[in-house]
Amino acid sequence: MQSHPTINASITPIGSLEVLSQTEVAKLKEAGENGLYELFRRCVLAILNTGSDSDNAKTILEAYPDFKIDIVQQDRGIRLNLYNAPADAFVDGEMITSTREMVFAALRDIVYAESERESPLIDLNSGSDITDYVFHFLRNARMMCPGEEPRIVVCWGGHSINKIEYKYTKEVGHELGYRGLDVCTGCGPGAMKGPMKGATIAHAKQRILNARYIGLTEPGIIAAEAPNPIVNELAILPDIEKRLEAFVRLGHGIIIFPGGAGTAEELLYLLGILLHPANRDIPFPLILTGPAESADYFKQLHEFIARTLGFEAQQKYKIIVDDFTAAAREMALGMKKVTEYRKATNDAFHFNWQLTIDEHYQHPFDATHDNMSQLQLSKDMPVHELAANLRRAFSGIVAGNVKEQGLVAIEKHGPFEIHGDNEIMEPLDELLNAFVSQGRMKLPGSEYVPCYRVVR
Amino acid sequence: MQSHPTINASITPIGSLEVLSQTEVAKLKEAGENGLYELFRRCVLAILNTGSDSDNAKTILEAYPDFKIDIVQQDRGIRLNLYNAPADAFVDGEMITSTREMVFAALRDIVYAESERESPLIDLNSGSDITDYVFHFLRNARMMCPGEEPRIVVCWGGHSINKIEYKYTKEVGHELGYRGLDVCTGCGPGAMKGPMKGATIAHAKQRILNARYIGLTEPGIIAAEAPNPIVNELAILPDIEKRLEAFVRLGHGIIIFPGGAGTAEELLYLLGILLHPANRDIPFPLILTGPAESADYFKQLHEFIARTLGFEAQQKYKIIVDDFTAAAREMALGMKKVTEYRKATNDAFHFNWQLTIDEHYQHPFDATHDNMSQLQLSKDMPVHELAANLRRAFSGIVAGNVKEQGLVAIEKHGPFEIHGDNEIMEPLDELLNAFVSQGRMKLPGSEYVPCYRVVR
Amino acid sequence: MQSHPTINASITPIGSLEVLSQTEVAKLKEAGENGLYELFRRCVLAILNTGSDSDNAKTILEAYPDFKIDIVQQDRGIRLNLYNAPADAFVDGEMITSTREMVFAALRDIVYAESERESPLIDLNSGSDITDYVFHFLRNARMMCPGEEPRIVVCWGGHSINKIEYKYTKEVGHELGYRGLDVCTGCGPGAMKGPMKGATIAHAKQRILNARYIGLTEPGIIAAEAPNPIVNELAILPDIEKRLEAFVRLGHGIIIFPGGAGTAEELLYLLGILLHPANRDIPFPLILTGPAESADYFKQLHEFIARTLGFEAQQKYKIIVDDFTAAAREMALGMKKVTEYRKATNDAFHFNWQLTIDEHYQHPFDATHDNMSQLQLSKDMPVHELAANLRRAFSGIVAGNVKEQGLVAIEKHGPFEIHGDNEIMEPLDELLNAFVSQGRMKLPGSEYVPCYRVVR
Amino acid sequence: MQSHPTINASITPIGSLEVLSQTEVAKLKEAGENGLYELFRRCVLAILNTGSDSDNAKTILEAYPDFKIDIVQQDRGIRLNLYNAPADAFVDGEMITSTREMVFAALRDIVYAESERESPLIDLNSGSDITDYVFHFLRNARMMCPGEEPRIVVCWGGHSINKIEYKYTKEVGHELGYRGLDVCTGCGPGAMKGPMKGATIAHAKQRILNARYIGLTEPGIIAAEAPNPIVNELAILPDIEKRLEAFVRLGHGIIIFPGGAGTAEELLYLLGILLHPANRDIPFPLILTGPAESADYFKQLHEFIARTLGFEAQQKYKIIVDDFTAAAREMALGMKKVTEYRKATNDAFHFNWQLTIDEHYQHPFDATHDNMSQLQLSKDMPVHELAANLRRAFSGIVAGNVKEQGLVAIEKHGPFEIHGDNEIMEPLDELLNAFVSQGRMKLPGSEYVPCYRVVR
Repeated sequence: MQSHPTINASITPIGSLEVLSQTEVAKLKEAGENGLYELFRRCVLAILNTGSDSDNAKTILEAYPDFKIDIVQQDRGIRLNLYNAPADAFVDGEMITSTREMVFAALRDIVYAESERESPLIDLNSGSDITDYVFHFLRNARMMCPGEEPRIVVCWGGHSINKIEYKYTKEVGHELGYRGLDVCTGCGPGAMKGPMKGATIAHAKQRILNARYIGLTEPGIIAAEAPNPIVNELAILPDIEKRLEAFVRLGHGIIIFPGGAGTAEELLYLLGILLHPANRDIPFPLILTGPAESADYFKQLHEFIARTLGFEAQQKYKIIVDDFTAAAREMALGMKKVTEYRKATNDAFHFNWQLTIDEHYQHPFDATHDNMSQLQLSKDMPVHELAANLRRAFSGIVAGNVKEQGLVAIEKHGPFEIHGDNEIMEPLDELLNAFVSQGRMKLPGSEYVPCYRVVR
Repeated sequence: MQSHPTINASITPIGSLEVLSQTEVAKLKEAGENGLYELFRRCVLAILNTGSDSDNAKTILEAYPDFKIDIVQQDRGIRLNLYNAPADAFVDGEMITSTREMVFAALRDIVYAESERESPLIDLNSGSDITDYVFHFLRNARMMCPGEEPRIVVCWGGHSINKIEYKYTKEVGHELGYRGLDVCTGCGPGAMKGPMKGATIAHAKQRILNARYIGLTEPGIIAAEAPNPIVNELAILPDIEKRLEAFVRLGHGIIIFPGGAGTAEELLYLLGILLHPANRDIPFPLILTGPAESADYFKQLHEFIARTLGFEAQQKYKIIVDDFTAAAREMALGMKKVTEYRKATNDAFHFNWQLTIDEHYQHPFDATHDNMSQLQLSKDMPVHELAANLRRAFSGIVAGNVKEQGLVAIEKHGPFEIHGDNEIMEPLDELLNAFVSQGRMKLPGSEYVPCYRVVR
Repeated sequence: MQSHPTINASITPIGSLEVLSQTEVAKLKEAGENGLYELFRRCVLAILNTGSDSDNAKTILEAYPDFKIDIVQQDRGIRLNLYNAPADAFVDGEMITSTREMVFAALRDIVYAESERESPLIDLNSGSDITDYVFHFLRNARMMCPGEEPRIVVCWGGHSINKIEYKYTKEVGHELGYRGLDVCTGCGPGAMKGPMKGATIAHAKQRILNARYIGLTEPGIIAAEAPNPIVNELAILPDIEKRLEAFVRLGHGIIIFPGGAGTAEELLYLLGILLHPANRDIPFPLILTGPAESADYFKQLHEFIARTLGFEAQQKYKIIVDDFTAAAREMALGMKKVTEYRKATNDAFHFNWQLTIDEHYQHPFDATHDNMSQLQLSKDMPVHELAANLRRAFSGIVAGNVKEQGLVAIEKHGPFEIHGDNEIMEPLDELLNAFVSQGRMKLPGSEYVPCYRVVR
Repeated sequence: MQSHPTINASITPIGSLEVLSQTEVAKLKEAGENGLYELFRRCVLAILNTGSDSDNAKTILEAYPDFKIDIVQQDRGIRLNLYNAPADAFVDGEMITSTREMVFAALRDIVYAESERESPLIDLNSGSDITDYVFHFLRNARMMCPGEEPRIVVCWGGHSINKIEYKYTKEVGHELGYRGLDVCTGCGPGAMKGPMKGATIAHAKQRILNARYIGLTEPGIIAAEAPNPIVNELAILPDIEKRLEAFVRLGHGIIIFPGGAGTAEELLYLLGILLHPANRDIPFPLILTGPAESADYFKQLHEFIARTLGFEAQQKYKIIVDDFTAAAREMALGMKKVTEYRKATNDAFHFNWQLTIDEHYQHPFDATHDNMSQLQLSKDMPVHELAANLRRAFSGIVAGNVKEQGLVAIEKHGPFEIHGDNEIMEPLDELLNAFVSQGRMKLPGSEYVPCYRVVR
């Protein structure tokens, strides 16, 4: 393995609220594969890898085997001494401020998750407890801003989109920023970075100094999709299910750009929720948009939804091709409806308590070969459960593509097998093949070896 | 009972960070004597009583029997609807902003204490766990400001001091404020209010906009010593022991003004800690000061210390009579030493982790008639344990004077009895008599009926 | 002459906007009695004398004959090296921040006045040019805050009031502060300081961080009435007429406390303006208030107005005795009317352009013996001109009491003579005698030797 | 002429300091070709044209013949009603905030220039008075920030550079922003916009909220080079000479990107100053940089300098090709030297008083056919005067290319003629031809018709 330039550095939080008790520091220092230290080290390494081109978590972690963190209590609260850290995170020896902030955000979230993990109060088997957990987690990350009018636009889409698509995401972000809207993404490059970059420029033009660029990630994905440095609020939620719940309860509207398996997972997750009878009247702006060049992609996706979840599901979103201003304007209008609805129903602006999320969507799905092959995918199921299982199928594919645990499993046992009714398997297979041929599964440059097999 | 003017009002937190989950709100609404609602109601009532002249908790609570709070979730996070609230807390129908802030601080602390209370993680039998608890509590109250140079001066002293003494506390506060120092007190009137008022004027002159006026109180005392409205950071700790620990770990130096039993309790608590061998080298500026008219008071106290705890204890403090500038200058110098020491030993500025506090001082002392009469007070004990028990004796007297539980016990069983060696009982009796004759036991106007009997 | 403690110090503006060009600095350094340097030196000396008890300008200036200022251009813009400065302006060797700000405000105003003085554009003979001058002067002092809702309450009253009156002014200030109102005074002690002090405490309680404590003074009076250190916006206008115009165009309402000749001057000035036909419909809240003990004072003044200016003049103000809450509440109501009126007439909030001020009131009155003895004071004149001349008479008396030039003239030629109709002279004589016997002419302690003689 | 979409709108300054007196408003409303109104209208039109692709001032002004402004005094200070304004400056009917700010900056500068124009104090014939004027102008525009460490990097370069060059300017800006440096340009697109855009992203990553993006322009050029909307501090100086002086006295270092005649003018101006014997020891970082593709351009320029001004002039700058990080790092180092030097010589950080600028460079050069043809360009002159005249030659070419007055003159009288020694004319001709063939004279798309003729 080629060696990478590294640096030793010592950092403190800037004007930060992060102070730890002695017990918390002690826990962080405990060694051992399963200890907090290792988890923290991996997250920090991912954050420092900000400019990296790889989306393979294992590769990144293996590239800096000597990377080490010492945690020291100090007058300024806490100090981290880093050894053999990736040099790209530094400018003339000083860590980039946003990166520094994210490192301490990781510290905060890991300490919080640990303290809650041990709490018997939180019965994570109950759905409402999981929702409470997500709320408390985000509150601890200071992401609850009561009284702020709804303006958080979640942007989903691929991390490996092409240049034209990337430019388009920037334009949409620019138009969102012009309208005073904030951007929330899953961190990482591509469609997660473009809108933030565009919004940054527009916010500067509108003299908006307190814009929010929210990144929601999870320990399993952060290495593959390192937070881009524009993110100024980062939360590392414990798993993909809590992360997705955070997206839909924190965000006030969602834009979906072209993407691959992860994007499909997100769309299916959201459609499943919006199709729930209890949510029928809750306004939730959902826009699918991309440049003229992506028109086919959206047609295909639209068709896939028609053939699996049906006409009603198609009514939950609006596709806008090749018109970034229209997309942003539509979203701004949607925000107004959300605001009115929340006011009328006396719901909080800062957290979408009213949305009913089925427990199916809240419990972690462990992407093992067994679980994947046993997924039920049939037209006979309620549309709503079918959506849930389709979501899990895509979740497994993402794990097999980029998450460390998934990569290891695939390396060991070969591709996942996905079974189901032909009516489902056919469009699924077509969609996945299209993703592969359009290069939506991997970052450009690398050849994609499928981690799944659709068994018709 | 005479009726008091009341008002109905509806309040929301201003730019506040207080957002609650649905579970938390539900708990607060639970009725019943032991429920959170009643505790919250009593704290809010105490806070609204800001301008009251009474120091009898029962009286205050009984004065507003119809006071009621409704808690409502809303777009701005939370709304409290108050019914029959004391009118003094309002200006032309609007609640005074500081009062409003304190109401939400009470909400925050009660919710936090509840969530921690149920946590099995916190073994409140262990001393270091109690210290961690105090740290977490203050962190949740956002009182940890890492990196801020030491400048919190705790001011202790009576709530029923005379006009000359009160004016003197204002002058000291003014001089502290001139030197950029912050003030932390136990809330309430008299020596707890004067320094804050003086500091406010001096901070205005020095154009210091971010000055901290910290109030640390407890549910049992808040009704008798309502936070004065200058307080801009309020924490309501669960009991007197945690409150005292918060004072000594959060504060960087302490000034003691003339006072009564509560002040003596505080002095004994602090001396007991500073006399601990492990704390010998830790700089901790402690100044006793008052106007020329209070010279006798300090002589008496100084003598009491000499006769009970001895010469070494006297070395831990400095008495400055009739020179407020000197007192403030001495404190400013002490701050510099504290800063240097913390830097040299790499200790946090925001929390005095290094101070060893014996578990004697951390465990709540229940001021029952039994516990009071069984206190061991003898010259044969280590000086350090004697200090602890003397502290408890005074703590019991405070409870009998102003805390609701104590008042009820005294009403039922008559005065507490305090036993001990004559060498201790004699100076104790003299000191207490002096307090009574100097009117230091009660607010002026009421006649004092002792709640204790010193049995020689 | 007794020697005073002095100090040498070097100061720079903090975060200040004051930067000077090299020409401006050169001009300030020019020596000579009539040069800018001497004027600046005297103003600074007055500002540093903040805590002084004397109101005799000459005494103060003579007390520090060696006081000297060096002006140095520097990286931070400008640096002032002070030699033999009054020690009271410093805390442990550091100049009090507000004092430092005021020193640089003096610098700013003197440089501005000089640059404008030479400008031929400003024809100070024309009334509207004088108004423009006042506007530009205050704009340069950054006192124009467009868009801020009207809330500046001008407080006028004596600098030598007694303790009961002083306490009352504090209470009024406290109630004004509770209602979010700002305070503007003529600087100096007594009724000019009390309201600011009270408002400071109330603003702290209401968490108002951007409160304005505006001081408007003039070079001739600043030595006798040093700005109190709560003032956070100071302007030194060139003469009393521009200063009075600044008060009525910048302020949105006026409260008059008990006072002496200066207060009477201010009241007559304002009544003269409000009686002008063009101003009849412009709302201008004017309240005369004081403690119960001052009831007689107000009766006397009220009677004097009746006998000289008549019934209509009495309708322009409201007297409220012994009710500080009512006074503040009335003022708050008045502010609402002012706000509505300005909105309705599209007038600026920050400057009362609509008020017509007769040129009589704008041209400086030179209080020489000749001018004083030639003042026409007759019932035959229009009420409005009579008010102007009465104002001048009192202006002369103030000059003779405390302004340096006046003091010198009186020393040389004896008291001013005031002639006029008996109908005017009688009540005038009675009012002045009452001022003398009530000790309203001088600071307590000194005996008053009248600087005038009323010739009936 | 094709019609453009327009909009009517009404705007007020946001939290602005701009308040005007009634006289000032009256002057602005005065009609007539030479009145302030017309000047203001043209500047505003230019500012609103932000996204325009044309660099022809006449075209732009003619495109909106019905554009009109009404100025209204109001409670918020001032209101502008715009009729038939270019629609591009608005987002959903709201003017972009930065554009709004710039409109009021134009108002401020025009009012200021007018008030100073009439002042007889300012003898604009004297060099030091012109310097004072520039200082006062910038101070009035609130661009003097005393005490801020030197960090303003002036970026010069063409407005019509190609994509590769443009991308490179963004990269340099990004690296400057990473190092906390601010950007100052002449407004407009191309090399004036790229560095600001790059810096905006890097400042966001470094969490720098108070970054300065300074635009310095002049009424004659603003229409051709509309300020890009990232500019957050705009000043419109009266003429090119004062604008150039503002650049070198306000900026702490200069980067020159590839450009055309304007860029050459700027380089010659700066070299002429730095070659002045009095300036020899003053550190002034000057870097010429561009992508690999621009290497030839720099070689040519370097050669032109060698052949006209000689070897010493070449020592005043450093050429860095194809390494944006090195360019930024070099500039950051240069800043440190500037800081040290200013500290050592006690010079202001905010204005480079020490730089000697010959009056040749300060007096406006009127680019008439006569003046152009009479320029002396000879090797016999002192190098320093030659530089001044070469600067004027390029200044005339810029005027003929894009300034309205110049365009009109060329239209009427044909191209300017430039005479001189062959040793100068030859390299000049070659350089200009290269500019033309590289498309550096005009925005892409239009064919360039030279406005000059080099007469050998």
